[in-house]
Amino acid sequence: MEAVAASGATVAFLALPHGAAADYTVSLLDKGLRVIDLSADFRLHDASIYEEFYGAPHPAPHLLAESVYGLPEIHRDAIRDARLVASPGCYPTSILLPLIPLLREGLVDPDTIVANSMSGVSGAGRKADLLLLFAECNESLRAYGLPRHRHLSEIEQELSLAAGDQVVITFVPHLVPVNNGICTTTSATLTGELEAVEQALRSIYENSVFVRLLGRGTCPDSKNVTRSNFIDIGWHHDPRTGRLLLLSAEDNLGKGAASQAVQSFNVLCGLDESAGLVAV
Amino acid sequence: MEAVAASGATVAFLALPHGAAADYTVSLLDKGLRVIDLSADFRLHDASIYEEFYGAPHPAPHLLAESVYGLPEIHRDAIRDARLVASPGCYPTSILLPLIPLLREGLVDPDTIVANSMSGVSGAGRKADLLLLFAECNESLRAYGLPRHRHLSEIEQELSLAAGDQVVITFVPHLVPVNNGICTTTSATLTGELEAVEQALRSIYENSVFVRLLGRGTCPDSKNVTRSNFIDIGWHHDPRTGRLLLLSAEDNLGKGAASQAVQSFNVLCGLDESAGLVAV
Amino acid sequence: MEAVAASGATVAFLALPHGAAADYTVSLLDKGLRVIDLSADFRLHDASIYEEFYGAPHPAPHLLAESVYGLPEIHRDAIRDARLVASPGCYPTSILLPLIPLLREGLVDPDTIVANSMSGVSGAGRKADLLLLFAECNESLRAYGLPRHRHLSEIEQELSLAAGDQVVITFVPHLVPVNNGICTTTSATLTGELEAVEQALRSIYENSVFVRLLGRGTCPDSKNVTRSNFIDIGWHHDPRTGRLLLLSAEDNLGKGAASQAVQSFNVLCGLDESAGLVAV
Amino acid sequence: MEAVAASGATVAFLALPHGAAADYTVSLLDKGLRVIDLSADFRLHDASIYEEFYGAPHPAPHLLAESVYGLPEIHRDAIRDARLVASPGCYPTSILLPLIPLLREGLVDPDTIVANSMSGVSGAGRKADLLLLFAECNESLRAYGLPRHRHLSEIEQELSLAAGDQVVITFVPHLVPVNNGICTTTSATLTGELEAVEQALRSIYENSVFVRLLGRGTCPDSKNVTRSNFIDIGWHHDPRTGRLLLLSAEDNLGKGAASQAVQSFNVLCGLDESAGLVAV
Repeated sequence: MEAVAASGATVAFLALPHGAAADYTVSLLDKGLRVIDLSADFRLHDASIYEEFYGAPHPAPHLLAESVYGLPEIHRDAIRDARLVASPGCYPTSILLPLIPLLREGLVDPDTIVANSMSGVSGAGRKADLLLLFAECNESLRAYGLPRHRHLSEIEQELSLAAGDQVVITFVPHLVPVNNGICTTTSATLTGELEAVEQALRSIYENSVFVRLLGRGTCPDSKNVTRSNFIDIGWHHDPRTGRLLLLSAEDNLGKGAASQAVQSFNVLCGLDESAGLVAV
Repeated sequence: MEAVAASGATVAFLALPHGAAADYTVSLLDKGLRVIDLSADFRLHDASIYEEFYGAPHPAPHLLAESVYGLPEIHRDAIRDARLVASPGCYPTSILLPLIPLLREGLVDPDTIVANSMSGVSGAGRKADLLLLFAECNESLRAYGLPRHRHLSEIEQELSLAAGDQVVITFVPHLVPVNNGICTTTSATLTGELEAVEQALRSIYENSVFVRLLGRGTCPDSKNVTRSNFIDIGWHHDPRTGRLLLLSAEDNLGKGAASQAVQSFNVLCGLDESAGLVAV
Repeated sequence: MEAVAASGATVAFLALPHGAAADYTVSLLDKGLRVIDLSADFRLHDASIYEEFYGAPHPAPHLLAESVYGLPEIHRDAIRDARLVASPGCYPTSILLPLIPLLREGLVDPDTIVANSMSGVSGAGRKADLLLLFAECNESLRAYGLPRHRHLSEIEQELSLAAGDQVVITFVPHLVPVNNGICTTTSATLTGELEAVEQALRSIYENSVFVRLLGRGTCPDSKNVTRSNFIDIGWHHDPRTGRLLLLSAEDNLGKGAASQAVQSFNVLCGLDESAGLVAV
Repeated sequence: MEAVAASGATVAFLALPHGAAADYTVSLLDKGLRVIDLSADFRLHDASIYEEFYGAPHPAPHLLAESVYGLPEIHRDAIRDARLVASPGCYPTSILLPLIPLLREGLVDPDTIVANSMSGVSGAGRKADLLLLFAECNESLRAYGLPRHRHLSEIEQELSLAAGDQVVITFVPHLVPVNNGICTTTSATLTGELEAVEQALRSIYENSVFVRLLGRGTCPDSKNVTRSNFIDIGWHHDPRTGRLLLLSAEDNLGKGAASQAVQSFNVLCGLDESAGLVAV
């Protein structure tokens, strides 16, 4: 930290395991740097929810109020002025970007949200774990982390902010044999007009180069976004059930992690939002 | 058909494309044989629903009333006496076996059912289609067939029979890069007691060697059932949302197709239900 | 061991790590049992070569003279009467079966043999090793174990026996992203007639149900032999270089390991050689 | 072609199927443009060898003498001044770059060369072919194209140029289940000093940013070069057999195709050789 502070840098990137990041963040902020943290340490504003989901008291609760959840398309202005940005998790990004515009406009019933995600194996990190061996993951499809994956906490925090009310959802992550990629299908009862869905999405994302709205009736494919910061979004309406289907695809290591943090860095530093990122 | 009839056989297996199977079935029945049809031609009892989902009038509607939907664990007695068995589709099997016992007992709200499935590429058949090339499917995750996959028709028929009322559900199939395997996650609002869920499942499947109830809190893995006639089932309850999660895994070409037809053959012929099938 | 001996069994199967098997083998033989050992402990007849390749003195050198190398197609008579069978390694099986008949007949130049093998990841065993993680093996192709893989010792022992002279070869194993399967391409300068190659192979394997000679001009595919005890063999002649190409495919866990040990068990017990094994 | 010529461009890139490229090339050259052709049409200098390997007379034999084989590390000066560059095939690049320096220095015996390659499925192109379906390629390992793959013609042309004598080699391509990547293992009898091998490689490639010499005793991994223009090279010596092993890894669509053509474009246009290419 001394070295970072002495280097003249004004922004630090932290890619540390959950828990370890908090100590560094405190020190770096004390030295006057701004911090973008890729861990889960500062994503929640409520220390009690942190303790509920992560099983230990928060190590630096005084920072939770000012920490900004680093979804640039949603919190761009706050990121610009932030001292501390908490970059989102991979699953949350894929669920929040399609849903937030609709909850803000009251277009879906927040009590009916079901999100199913499939993730590539790199999402589990690089650790010597029997469950992550090639022969265990290849030709294997399985849900895990039920019924309360840690990411639910940040998902529900941001959905509640958008809806203006407490939202709880069903979220089922699955492990599938690809290296990179998340494909998420979220559904909820449509309470507004179908046309308003498209308007809500387009109006929020029209200037967001990394959110590609493929349109109604489309199914995004994770291979079209891997190794990029793009998230592709499609949607369908099923008049038989009255439910709206939201489909999204991103790279869990890209828009779901590293390149989204770069995007936040660009916003925070006043650079072009796509500086250093593939944007065509 | 002449040859089959002359051979002295009394049961014919048909693995023909949709549409083509009906002609053969009519002829074979006329010659006094019993038929197990693996196509979708005789799964629906209502010719108008067939036409709605398959886009053409049914070629032999007079047979729809007597055709038995070939889920042995559900329709065992009817299969035993059937002239015509319509073996179920792969997705339907994975959705119906966990849900039917609960709908019969009124344990979940039929208006809240959301089923998400992932299937291996063999489910699409062996045809020279660019979308099925290795380089298109490998490292790719995508939904398809929305919002009304053809299998919905038989799923909803059987769920409605179990519930005693018309049921419509949300069903989202996804294509994932494995050869074999289906992993399905179905959720619905729990309206009964959680203990009753387990009782309902165990009471229906206690003598069904191919349905393995892994128990509450478990997540089946498709690789444990591929190349077999087993379906593994687990479940979870999320008290935060009030939803019950049902997880199932099967081989789309096994319990979801060929070996399930063999199981029906065994029932129909009065053989041991697991004759010729791996059952340990 | 007491339990095994007391059980009335007369044959013991050992699937233990290299080194550990020797102790058990000695005890079991002392108690009058016959042993089929799947480890590498008793494959070599020369203790000094064992020490050279395995880096430690052999723990029971007095047994090396009587141990029979468990390739049933090559050592069937010796296996029938053996007290101790050392079941071959996966790579050796794929190299030896095509080559031995040709070396016996002097049809290829033993100084020019180059064997290249590709193996699925299960060949490395189930251990928590970073190099075996899904994300490390998927989309990855790499040689390893150069220039002197341990299996070279048993390969060269058996080739030398067939040639009647000391043979050393070039052997390059590669790790590729499949669960099961070995595909080996061996080439050597043809010194006899091409027709004699086919005769030599057919005459040795005509009654061997598990060796399928696909014929000249064919390329075996590992997926046709996985989960079986078959090895498929094809061959090509390149008149431009004068080299003969021998191609073989097997399941590294089947003919390359477990099911081959079962085959030896059948021979040793006087059972039908394919008892308990898929043979059609 | 009119449009290209009228556009003011001076260089045309052709990525057309074999055969189709020749017509365009002739027209574009006639209009005064320089051409980089990614097809196999102009890789051979001898029209009779073209006819032998491609089964038809060459459509524009008068251009074969001036066409430059587009391996920038080997033919950099000729590319700089060329009107017509024929960009190499994927397999040839992986075999030629390790071998050419050694043949020039007479360090290996050209009569003993055996090259074994594994290629990802994208190498076969994007065509609706049953053999390329996911379920046919996944969990499958197989050689193909034996004994005389078309690429042998250009491989042997360039090796012969390097050796100063006619060279024929054994080349065995294999199809393995990855999207991208080629891993090639070439061996030959070492006739010079082992130290001279390293010197020969380093002296030719010391200023070639895209050829990374990993050093003696290393095994390149294709995943380290996919989506780049790098080729990684390692080597081993086996004193038991006297053979040298050369291992190389590249992206069949990168250094083996598209990005190598960009590299040639840079040379031809006098740009920095790595302009537009990842080079760190």
